[in-house]
Amino acid sequence: MHTLTVELGDRAYPIVIGPELMTAERIAPHIHGRQVLVVTNETVAPLYLSRVLKAVSAFEVATVVLPDGEAHKHLETLDLIFSEALENRFSRNATFIALGGGVVGDMAGFAAASYQRGVRFLQIPTTLLAQVDSSVGGKTGVNHRLGKNMIGAFHQPTAVFADTDMLKSLPPRELSAGLAEVIKYGLLGDHQFLQWIESKIEALRAQDSEALTEAIRQSCTMKAEIVRRDEREGGVRALLNLGHTFGHAIEAHLGYGDWLHGEAVGAGMVMAAEVSRQIGALDASDVARVASLCESAGLPTKPPAGMTPSDFMTHMAVDKKNVDGRMRFILLRALGDAYVDDAVDPQSLSAALTTCCH
Amino acid sequence: MHTLTVELGDRAYPIVIGPELMTAERIAPHIHGRQVLVVTNETVAPLYLSRVLKAVSAFEVATVVLPDGEAHKHLETLDLIFSEALENRFSRNATFIALGGGVVGDMAGFAAASYQRGVRFLQIPTTLLAQVDSSVGGKTGVNHRLGKNMIGAFHQPTAVFADTDMLKSLPPRELSAGLAEVIKYGLLGDHQFLQWIESKIEALRAQDSEALTEAIRQSCTMKAEIVRRDEREGGVRALLNLGHTFGHAIEAHLGYGDWLHGEAVGAGMVMAAEVSRQIGALDASDVARVASLCESAGLPTKPPAGMTPSDFMTHMAVDKKNVDGRMRFILLRALGDAYVDDAVDPQSLSAALTTCCH
Repeated sequence: MHTLTVELGDRAYPIVIGPELMTAERIAPHIHGRQVLVVTNETVAPLYLSRVLKAVSAFEVATVVLPDGEAHKHLETLDLIFSEALENRFSRNATFIALGGGVVGDMAGFAAASYQRGVRFLQIPTTLLAQVDSSVGGKTGVNHRLGKNMIGAFHQPTAVFADTDMLKSLPPRELSAGLAEVIKYGLLGDHQFLQWIESKIEALRAQDSEALTEAIRQSCTMKAEIVRRDEREGGVRALLNLGHTFGHAIEAHLGYGDWLHGEAVGAGMVMAAEVSRQIGALDASDVARVASLCESAGLPTKPPAGMTPSDFMTHMAVDKKNVDGRMRFILLRALGDAYVDDAVDPQSLSAALTTCCH
Repeated sequence: MHTLTVELGDRAYPIVIGPELMTAERIAPHIHGRQVLVVTNETVAPLYLSRVLKAVSAFEVATVVLPDGEAHKHLETLDLIFSEALENRFSRNATFIALGGGVVGDMAGFAAASYQRGVRFLQIPTTLLAQVDSSVGGKTGVNHRLGKNMIGAFHQPTAVFADTDMLKSLPPRELSAGLAEVIKYGLLGDHQFLQWIESKIEALRAQDSEALTEAIRQSCTMKAEIVRRDEREGGVRALLNLGHTFGHAIEAHLGYGDWLHGEAVGAGMVMAAEVSRQIGALDASDVARVASLCESAGLPTKPPAGMTPSDFMTHMAVDKKNVDGRMRFILLRALGDAYVDDAVDPQSLSAALTTCCH
């Protein structure tokens, strides 16, 4: 078992990684007050809810089971959480527990940020993607019909439990989606880790638990360090969006829920590499290496069939990273070295989009 | 013109009080970025929107005109704000301006707290109540069908402009509602200010601008000092809820929008005084003095006809101030000296409710 600490002053919190974490001994010390609201979804509930309820049985517990999927990640669904908390007369001293993947974490986290103007919450991420990425950093929120994650809050959890036992039930496609974020950490800042991933990609896809544990530990460590340096995304934290500008456009174009988030990020990272090549930062062989690793991880390396450069331009115009209307991209100086570029020339962008969309 | 500063470290902000504040010279320096979303309502827009739009004409401006009234203060109405911002492709560097009373301020503030996980906002409160109370302290939020202000955020404005010119259009009933909060500051912490209010109550109701300016200045100063000491309401800030536990119950019972918030607080302060008497802290003459001042201010001094003690108990059980299910009240040790009491005996509470409800 590993425990990392995300150092954020009085909002610092531990990330516990390992097997068999769902015990009262591990979880109860992180709950203040005596009211607990477990937020999960209809897919996760039959698998893990009873385990969690047992671990918190000493508390006054209520449960909300949300519909599964990104398509439900909007304000109306949040109301299910608020109503359950209010019907149980939960005070601002209650603790919410997010049990599920990134969508559950985002919604339960935003509900916790907003319920009575803020209550504590624990994250129990049940997918690889959520364990390595969305449970670290305090980003919470919901989608709007005009854009992804457009409504939300920065709200840090009290603790995160990444229980590797929970990955055993994960479908291969979701495992691959999680690997997209692991690859992202290698690409954005650690060439040695990137090489390690390339060498372990088969073991990771085969759910080798030692390899998975190391991948989660390394990814969370990198993300925790980046978040510590930049909690509210003024600077270096933007690098975590490598592949996401294009990925979000793909998700918005398809309608959320068709491709998995990690799949869109996979294709998005190849596209970011291609833009980097067009502006002269990367070689064609670098782009091929990114595409090859994504392919080995079981990820798409191109946008969905039929999506055009102009589809990308439409969706990217409302990206949150844009400042005063200028598009910002996370590009690669080299594999393992990302940077923010808000001055990509339109010709290079257009050429990259045309290349990738064919 | 007075300028107070609410001292909250890197979230410190100025409150500017006085006439003729709606100029580019005063407002523009507080706007970062170049996108401005003015949020107002259908009552305020015809009176003051053009004045504000002129002051921000150097920026890229969009406007949302919300329906008027507490009945619209819910999540669905927020979507009008999010949609307008997204349709205009406003980035996280945009500034929202709340132009209106407390309801507009609460909604625009929560929308600003949540839009792209937080953008800056300015408050231009147009009612006395909003000027002395709801625009200071960073509380934002919306109602839920199961309780008032149950969903929200602490989000400090960049600046507040309390323009006394805007009170000239205020209906007498709304002026009285604002005076309820002014009286609250005297009652909760400053007997000398309470005496000043008693001596000036006729001048205040007659809209004497010097008296109003002083009342706003003194109320904002007291609130700013309390908020500085306790930004997130762990302790002394709870005193600001004097009269509000009962007041919220009245509003919930009637359905929001029948009585004005300040009217409910007026009756609520008399009820808090009566509970204080029942537990032996105040004399009957103190309660009479509170009731008399509220009456002079044009406020109700009793709950609405037909509202019973058990109606109060039902609504107060979900009050945000409750901790782990225990009811917390703000009571008076003396006029000008409030405290938090979470151990009121049921007999005293019941006797006070019975007295007040008849």
